[in-house]
Amino acid sequence: MTLHFETVALSEGTVVLLDQRQLPEREAYITCKTHEQVAQAIKNMTVRGAPAIGVTAAMGLALAALNSKAADISAFKEEMRSARETLAKTRPTAVNLNWALNRIQTVIHENEASDLPTLKEAIVREAQRIKEEDIQTNRLIGEHGQKILSNGETVLTHCNAGALATAGYGTALGVIYAAVSAGKTISVIVDETRPMLQGSRLSAWELKRNNVPVTVIADNMAAALMQARQVKKIIVGADRIAANGDTANKIGTYALAIVARHHRVPFYVAAPLATIDTNTKSGRDIPIEERNPEEVTRIGEKQIAPQGVLVKNPAFDVTPAELITGIITEKGILRYPYEEKIANLLPPR
Amino acid sequence: MTLHFETVALSEGTVVLLDQRQLPEREAYITCKTHEQVAQAIKNMTVRGAPAIGVTAAMGLALAALNSKAADISAFKEEMRSARETLAKTRPTAVNLNWALNRIQTVIHENEASDLPTLKEAIVREAQRIKEEDIQTNRLIGEHGQKILSNGETVLTHCNAGALATAGYGTALGVIYAAVSAGKTISVIVDETRPMLQGSRLSAWELKRNNVPVTVIADNMAAALMQARQVKKIIVGADRIAANGDTANKIGTYALAIVARHHRVPFYVAAPLATIDTNTKSGRDIPIEERNPEEVTRIGEKQIAPQGVLVKNPAFDVTPAELITGIITEKGILRYPYEEKIANLLPPR
Repeated sequence: MTLHFETVALSEGTVVLLDQRQLPEREAYITCKTHEQVAQAIKNMTVRGAPAIGVTAAMGLALAALNSKAADISAFKEEMRSARETLAKTRPTAVNLNWALNRIQTVIHENEASDLPTLKEAIVREAQRIKEEDIQTNRLIGEHGQKILSNGETVLTHCNAGALATAGYGTALGVIYAAVSAGKTISVIVDETRPMLQGSRLSAWELKRNNVPVTVIADNMAAALMQARQVKKIIVGADRIAANGDTANKIGTYALAIVARHHRVPFYVAAPLATIDTNTKSGRDIPIEERNPEEVTRIGEKQIAPQGVLVKNPAFDVTPAELITGIITEKGILRYPYEEKIANLLPPR
Repeated sequence: MTLHFETVALSEGTVVLLDQRQLPEREAYITCKTHEQVAQAIKNMTVRGAPAIGVTAAMGLALAALNSKAADISAFKEEMRSARETLAKTRPTAVNLNWALNRIQTVIHENEASDLPTLKEAIVREAQRIKEEDIQTNRLIGEHGQKILSNGETVLTHCNAGALATAGYGTALGVIYAAVSAGKTISVIVDETRPMLQGSRLSAWELKRNNVPVTVIADNMAAALMQARQVKKIIVGADRIAANGDTANKIGTYALAIVARHHRVPFYVAAPLATIDTNTKSGRDIPIEERNPEEVTRIGEKQIAPQGVLVKNPAFDVTPAELITGIITEKGILRYPYEEKIANLLPPR
């Protein structure tokens, strides 16, 4: 299972991003030369998906380092602090963003005694390492997760937790790719995922490209398919998982989890441990990003609601831990209740 | 509460329809000169909504009568049978369509002895009467229904069961209009209702036009709003109600009912008795229309899914009676269980 595109790359002093806003119509790449451009690309969803955002932010910080004209370590650190702040505030919900920026921060801290060129090199190396580790982590998630899937099953997913949402391979879709690689026949139903349509635009595109049979539905059709017993399992990604297992993910995930429970369809979250934020006690403490109303009132150039109508546009919702059958991580599958299991895997430092 | 548009009218030998496909961008009317044009307008959703479809079909049959060149009653009846068939097969789920066509059929049957001009006049009169009765029925539904709403409440609705879905006033939205007329302040949250966006395009438009505060959300956001206790009640329309109360309505209604039950939010269906089909025993027996995949893969000119991807596009789903708190009719509000109450109101003939 090889994908013929790269979601994010740090190359010759630039960050190259597959412009996901143009999919599936066009496969175009944009080149960021500054960390500000990287921040803008995260904000406007050129790149999206919690793990991909983390990797991209780390690369943005690496760009800031490479571009720095600072003459001494203290000026350099000040520039990096400012760049980090710009990148951190692009999107509030995904915790991988801060996790990745913290890893670069740690490298700066540990190499303060080095000369600046050596420090910059260490930062770039760390950003590349975050990317490679993300792919490796996804493969492990896939390996553990594919065991829950039997030959011939149909899996429903929401949004895009695939190669496009990560440095490569994917979390929820990674589980499906791993099952297919293990020789199982798996069909996928994907919610289109309004308002940004990551399901119909991105998941359908990457699944089709990988020859996995995929059917697109509007978000509001999933319940009828479960009623007709056409969905065997649900697997979604995550943007932040609290210490108790409550999970913030793309808006619509919570409704899906309730409907799954009603029909006794197992509901899994697939995510790297970096998505778990033990500093967030429960879902109540997760900030939910509210995005531009025009995402709801317009599609492309088309106005689909009366001018000036009120809109709500939360980008994420929180699914309580008790509705989640299991959380698939690179260290194995956690089963409800999660609090103790998470604390054991990620002890407070 | 007066609306400044007419959904459907029979005027000077033509059927005039507000072209709902063009809303909210343009308020345009189309004129049908033949029953075939009327059938096409029902099929392509120029006009939609179970009660409006019923009224429009009756008017289409009246057009067929007016246009008939038949020299005798038997040739006329044959033409009417054929026109009726054309109109009946436009959309399979809404039962009001057959109910209205049956009423015209009864008029033909009862006036077989009349001369043809008199018979044609009786048919036109019946079509007009069906329209007037629909508006009157909606006002009664509103009167009964508004009692469930308290001052200051927020109601969530799906699709459009308003003036645009009926001959005027509306069923679910009629309840809201009646509450507002009774002096209550009511806010409405409306699901955009993919794929055809009747919520954002039609309900938002007519509510705004009537100065009812309205907020548009994507279908997948309703659960998060219920979790945050921002929805007090849900009221939707119906396309067909079975003898046991199982209700077919716009796709997405079933998910909403499950999520409402999960949050203990009361869930009401508002519909005229003509929507109840006692010949349909339960929801299993309701035919569900599957529509064109392009409704899901395109919005306007924009392709939002990869070319050639598989799609499911059921236009309706079935909500089991036990998830419905009450069915608001012109004869009052029925409460679960429904079977006996429906049988009492609509005894088998």
